[in-house]
Amino acid sequence: MREPASRADFEARLRRIGDERYHDKHPFHGLLHSGGCTMDQVQAWVINRYYYQSRIPMKDAAFMSRVEDPALRRAWRSRIEDHDGTAENEGGISRWLRLAEAVNLDPEYVASTRGVLAGTRFAVDAYVRFVRDKTLLEAVASSLTELFAPKIHSERIAGLLAHYDFADDNSTAYFQNRLKEAPKDVAFGLAWVLDHADTAEKQDACAAALTFKTDVLWSQLDALHSAYVAPARIPPGAWQPGEGQLEKAA
Amino acid sequence: MREPASRADFEARLRRIGDERYHDKHPFHGLLHSGGCTMDQVQAWVINRYYYQSRIPMKDAAFMSRVEDPALRRAWRSRIEDHDGTAENEGGISRWLRLAEAVNLDPEYVASTRGVLAGTRFAVDAYVRFVRDKTLLEAVASSLTELFAPKIHSERIAGLLAHYDFADDNSTAYFQNRLKEAPKDVAFGLAWVLDHADTAEKQDACAAALTFKTDVLWSQLDALHSAYVAPARIPPGAWQPGEGQLEKAA
Repeated sequence: MREPASRADFEARLRRIGDERYHDKHPFHGLLHSGGCTMDQVQAWVINRYYYQSRIPMKDAAFMSRVEDPALRRAWRSRIEDHDGTAENEGGISRWLRLAEAVNLDPEYVASTRGVLAGTRFAVDAYVRFVRDKTLLEAVASSLTELFAPKIHSERIAGLLAHYDFADDNSTAYFQNRLKEAPKDVAFGLAWVLDHADTAEKQDACAAALTFKTDVLWSQLDALHSAYVAPARIPPGAWQPGEGQLEKAA
Repeated sequence: MREPASRADFEARLRRIGDERYHDKHPFHGLLHSGGCTMDQVQAWVINRYYYQSRIPMKDAAFMSRVEDPALRRAWRSRIEDHDGTAENEGGISRWLRLAEAVNLDPEYVASTRGVLAGTRFAVDAYVRFVRDKTLLEAVASSLTELFAPKIHSERIAGLLAHYDFADDNSTAYFQNRLKEAPKDVAFGLAWVLDHADTAEKQDACAAALTFKTDVLWSQLDALHSAYVAPARIPPGAWQPGEGQLEKAA
């Protein structure tokens, strides 16, 4: 039997996965944050990333459907509220649709998920199924990409505000709120994983789950870059620039 | 209630999906068949396409696991035999590994599926799950991309033989055999779909299933093109040229 790594070493192993594989290293993000994206490319990102947002509460419900412990379900439930909203909080999905409007997309078109890239669907659906099918420990570990999210959200807010006319407090509200919400989720998730991964095998499974999740995120940006950044190859059936606009361009 | 289309019109609708969306229109195939691929790109294709081959018998077993009619199971069973082999027939997976050896890849490396692109995995796994989760009619309809395969196999055999030193009867045996096997499968599948899609709603579901399957195939080539054709962006963890070679290059 291998000994499990210490808590600190195991946490360092998980953080290294982010250093090496998190999608903030993908060239599309450099393009977006530096102002190098055309408005068509920004719209393509908003349309495709919406599909990911829209599936997150389904992923969290799939997780909760398998949790027998009411305390764990209660702790997890706020994730669904953060995305779907409550009486006091409009929720992340609604905020994302405000971003869609700000970039001149019809929010009904975006919410229909028509035109989403097949590569985006396959990656996101793989994540929902992973959480539905794997152990609870692997499911929680796969959520730990939130460890690496505050940096990308901060860069994105600064980059969008600096470089694009559409960016203001309203259109970047999604990211502003995630900066507030994500830290409590990830603190809980990280502690839960460190507590429960008490063998070397379980630690390996957690590292594999987090690696899988970085693939889910990276693969979405690959599909986006391949379809909409020169030399662009838009797959059959995917969104074509000009579709789903909020108002006719002048 | 809408009336269903006639048998001939419905078949024409299915064939149009192939005309518009089958992956023979993807630029990677033009590159491969015209001799424009480097050996690294041919190797990347062989490694990634192996993942698809390796999951086809699992997909067919998932289908058979839901079929109550012994006659339909018997008709379907030959698909698994064609890929996994019998006493008399080595099977498609083994033939694909002969192709791997011919392009100087270690067949054990290829069979390990290490280095397969995440985009390939997500697309192929989506297909296996589609066949496991959807109606039997949609599952059979999704197999009808075989209608369009003979043309691409013929072009591939001719293109590989004309342009690449590794290509001969041994290394192209997979495609030669598919030309013999696929027509009987697809004749059965097409007749079954035409017989069973007896409402407009079922015909729509079949068209959507076949469209989904063209997305599965196209998305694999998008991932491959994006990773390995200039400007190449190899995702973290994916195969790097030089890995998994059968023998050291001179």
